[in-house]
Amino acid sequence: MPEIARKPRLAQSASRPVPEACVTRLSWYMRELHLLQLRGVRFVSSRWLAKHLGLTDAQVRRDLSYFGQFGTSGRGYEVIRLHERLRSILGVSGRTWNLALAGVGNLGSALLAHEGFRERGFRFRVAVDADPGKIGERIQEITVASAARLPQLTRSHSIDIGVIAVPALAAQKVCKQMVQGGVRAILNFAPVRLEAPENVRVRTVDLAMELESLTFHLVRGAG
Amino acid sequence: MPEIARKPRLAQSASRPVPEACVTRLSWYMRELHLLQLRGVRFVSSRWLAKHLGLTDAQVRRDLSYFGQFGTSGRGYEVIRLHERLRSILGVSGRTWNLALAGVGNLGSALLAHEGFRERGFRFRVAVDADPGKIGERIQEITVASAARLPQLTRSHSIDIGVIAVPALAAQKVCKQMVQGGVRAILNFAPVRLEAPENVRVRTVDLAMELESLTFHLVRGAG
Repeated sequence: MPEIARKPRLAQSASRPVPEACVTRLSWYMRELHLLQLRGVRFVSSRWLAKHLGLTDAQVRRDLSYFGQFGTSGRGYEVIRLHERLRSILGVSGRTWNLALAGVGNLGSALLAHEGFRERGFRFRVAVDADPGKIGERIQEITVASAARLPQLTRSHSIDIGVIAVPALAAQKVCKQMVQGGVRAILNFAPVRLEAPENVRVRTVDLAMELESLTFHLVRGAG
Repeated sequence: MPEIARKPRLAQSASRPVPEACVTRLSWYMRELHLLQLRGVRFVSSRWLAKHLGLTDAQVRRDLSYFGQFGTSGRGYEVIRLHERLRSILGVSGRTWNLALAGVGNLGSALLAHEGFRERGFRFRVAVDADPGKIGERIQEITVASAARLPQLTRSHSIDIGVIAVPALAAQKVCKQMVQGGVRAILNFAPVRLEAPENVRVRTVDLAMELESLTFHLVRGAG
């Protein structure tokens, strides 16, 4: 779980709090449903979803039950309807989220070019870098701006999510500037724990940590 | 949690099974201890670690208790010793893990250049791409080879972990080739669920999914 810098969060649904791990699984259900839809499949059982995602039947039903009744007795879930409902629950139905990138190095450039973002409703509107040599450069239809302009650009472009791909030492300052610019969510790739106000959600993806969780198992021979 | 494509795994320690979420937290403890060590701090309490990582005191103690007794009554944990012990538990103490990269696009190139990997004991030895135009190119001291040579190169370089940064449609084939070449762990950046033998551990990082877990909260105004 990339985000452990805070206590396990519970988001409010209409009735019960939704565990963070469930939110992650919703994305997986959404992807499976999308693939089923492309193949013209109309109904799917919780059992099929469970099997394909390595979960239990009960887990799938419990996850979906947070958001109301979906099943059609005997036939399972209607693929198109459940897919659209999940898109809406995850906030990616019929809208685009504006992203600002800080740090146009190797990783930042890769993120700007990442097709998966655009396909799923995420668009970079702003990119900044501290290196004067990069300012004015055009990458993926975006002109790199000076890092000093980050709060102002974040605000003027109505940025929803800030993406941090700067070195660890610069990340906290960038985080603060993004918050000043009004973002309420940050995806952080710097290997550092960021401090942000309570109403700003920070998710950190630490690539080396992903490898460490693999080596833990390799040294144990647990496969 | 990037990896949910399987049932929650329990790795065997000497005595009790260790939850996957605990393995992730060990990396976080390790990082905090490293920073404390740099600052010359000699002892740290579970309470301090808990506060800085947004966990409970009891959680920290429980996580560490999986691996034996660490505390020194009254003074807390000895920073240097606990740090070294965690490095050893996570398999990153005094050894280097060999990585092979498939896909030298934007993301792959960023991964090859990622300094956090080298610092933490991970070294790319092999990089392949399906594009003939990229073969022979030198990136970060590695010469890009033909994708067809992946199984052979994986074996001859004693690769421990395969890193997949190819398009979704090509990922399963690459996964199979890495397994043929003898890897037992794969870090997958393609937005697709990979099938691998039981003794091969696959961890998938889906960047758009990381954003979706943020938007879930944004649409709810939960901050």
